[in-house]
Amino acid sequence: MKALYFDGKLSVRETERPQRAPGDALIAVRFAGICGTDRQILKGYSGFRGIPGHEFVGEVVECDDARWIGKRVVGEINVTCGSCEWCRRGLGRHCQRRTVMGIINRPGAFAEFVALPVANLHEIPQELLDEEAVFTEPLAAACEILEQMPISGGTRVAVLGDGRLGLLAAQVLQHAQTQVTVIGRHDDKLGLARVWGMSIVHAGKQPIPAKSFTVVVDATGSPQGLDQALRIVEPRGTVVMKSTFHEPAHFDTARLVVDEITLLGSRCGHFPAAIDLLQSGHVKVQELVSRTFPLEAGLEAFRYLDQTSCLKVLLAPGA
Amino acid sequence: MKALYFDGKLSVRETERPQRAPGDALIAVRFAGICGTDRQILKGYSGFRGIPGHEFVGEVVECDDARWIGKRVVGEINVTCGSCEWCRRGLGRHCQRRTVMGIINRPGAFAEFVALPVANLHEIPQELLDEEAVFTEPLAAACEILEQMPISGGTRVAVLGDGRLGLLAAQVLQHAQTQVTVIGRHDDKLGLARVWGMSIVHAGKQPIPAKSFTVVVDATGSPQGLDQALRIVEPRGTVVMKSTFHEPAHFDTARLVVDEITLLGSRCGHFPAAIDLLQSGHVKVQELVSRTFPLEAGLEAFRYLDQTSCLKVLLAPGA
Repeated sequence: MKALYFDGKLSVRETERPQRAPGDALIAVRFAGICGTDRQILKGYSGFRGIPGHEFVGEVVECDDARWIGKRVVGEINVTCGSCEWCRRGLGRHCQRRTVMGIINRPGAFAEFVALPVANLHEIPQELLDEEAVFTEPLAAACEILEQMPISGGTRVAVLGDGRLGLLAAQVLQHAQTQVTVIGRHDDKLGLARVWGMSIVHAGKQPIPAKSFTVVVDATGSPQGLDQALRIVEPRGTVVMKSTFHEPAHFDTARLVVDEITLLGSRCGHFPAAIDLLQSGHVKVQELVSRTFPLEAGLEAFRYLDQTSCLKVLLAPGA
Repeated sequence: MKALYFDGKLSVRETERPQRAPGDALIAVRFAGICGTDRQILKGYSGFRGIPGHEFVGEVVECDDARWIGKRVVGEINVTCGSCEWCRRGLGRHCQRRTVMGIINRPGAFAEFVALPVANLHEIPQELLDEEAVFTEPLAAACEILEQMPISGGTRVAVLGDGRLGLLAAQVLQHAQTQVTVIGRHDDKLGLARVWGMSIVHAGKQPIPAKSFTVVVDATGSPQGLDQALRIVEPRGTVVMKSTFHEPAHFDTARLVVDEITLLGSRCGHFPAAIDLLQSGHVKVQELVSRTFPLEAGLEAFRYLDQTSCLKVLLAPGA
């Protein structure tokens, strides 16, 4: 099969189809989304070698349980041992023996086929387009904020960063009736937030009021985001960190301690909440697709993401 | 009066007694404790100029309300506006117009006299010695952890750092029935924790198990503490930061995000809980006093604190 492969350098290559372990399904990938974490992997994050990619929608083509064959699915990315304390607590995504599709010791979805345990799969309702369903994984990551930390309606929330993840998180938080302000640097991306009824602040052109938000979601994808988040969160407020990057971050711990701020690391979430939000239309994702490339043009797709005006880029292995 | 004064350099000098504002009491300081924050102030933290010192016990010598005269008191360090949103919520220590005794725009307690609003004072029960009562402020800071974040009995808690604040926090957490492990580098200080029935780990001699504590209190007073705390906290656990320092900290944000760790800044607490713990004998503080210096020997007292075996150093302005 064709796949993107990273061995210190990204290339398109012909590889074997992934081996199905007992209980695995083999899935023909229809669309795969490129995420900030994939770009960090290319900089060395997590030391991953192999086929990256962890956002996908596809069709089951092989499976021991024949009922799955032909179904259109998305898949949770953490493959867990099922027996440790974390797995037993329903928090398998923290299983210390886990592999993570396209991130830790498991081939990812930038390929014609990907293998995943049936237990990780979620069937996609008919009404959803493939181009919507492929957002399930990042949208679940946005939903995770509210799973970790209930936020009351009316709470002043800032989303720092107007990129893919920022605009997903902003919609999830707006749907939870919070007062959302999106802070970014791109007129076109902020324009979407405005159309969706959110307040916006253009960080390059307008001052950002200090200590004025109860919750700040750092979705900048950059180590500098944290310092800015700490400036705009109010005393006793919470900064939610959604970005992973290869470099360490520096920050003023005195600000954190003196103002008794909470910094909350937040990663993957459950898929069902995300699928519901897509199905109900409460979160809009089609506007977020900047361009779709065939798998063979994967290197070009990654270069295209360097354009600051870009939002989500999809790969279409079946195209 | 005699006072220690910091103007970029610490000196003992003769100054005017502090002016009493309406509602203030003038207090003759009996003992004042030197805290890690005072040592950071000498390195430039908070840009403070004036008389440092914010841990004290003393006797009211002047006050408009005559009932206070002659009373033995300790005092909350934040002097607040009383009318802003934070003050109205009972969180005056986050009032944005506050002054803070010996830290922000208000003379501190390394002096013969200090002035504070009567509203900040707490009378000390007769049974408590001055040398115990002077621990009220740092002990309240240790109690603040549980005010911000209830911790269930039996929870595995590590206190990182076997210094003054670490040993206070460890006692507070042990009294709350948690399973406390103190991690430090000093046989004598760890010996106290052992006598009090806590588990101990000598960081220089024993390995510290990774990802093994649900809560880690970073009381190292050093920017490096955070990285170690993040190594030993379990996924979805909490690191409580108690230290303020002048330098920024660096840390691996990926660890925070991937393991969904919470980092909680924690500062001053309410005094009544601390006074109760001292009075009931549940927290032992006399063992923590390494040496008492007269105020005139304040510079020597600060130098004495550089000895790593040192715990609390007191100044006795009345001596």
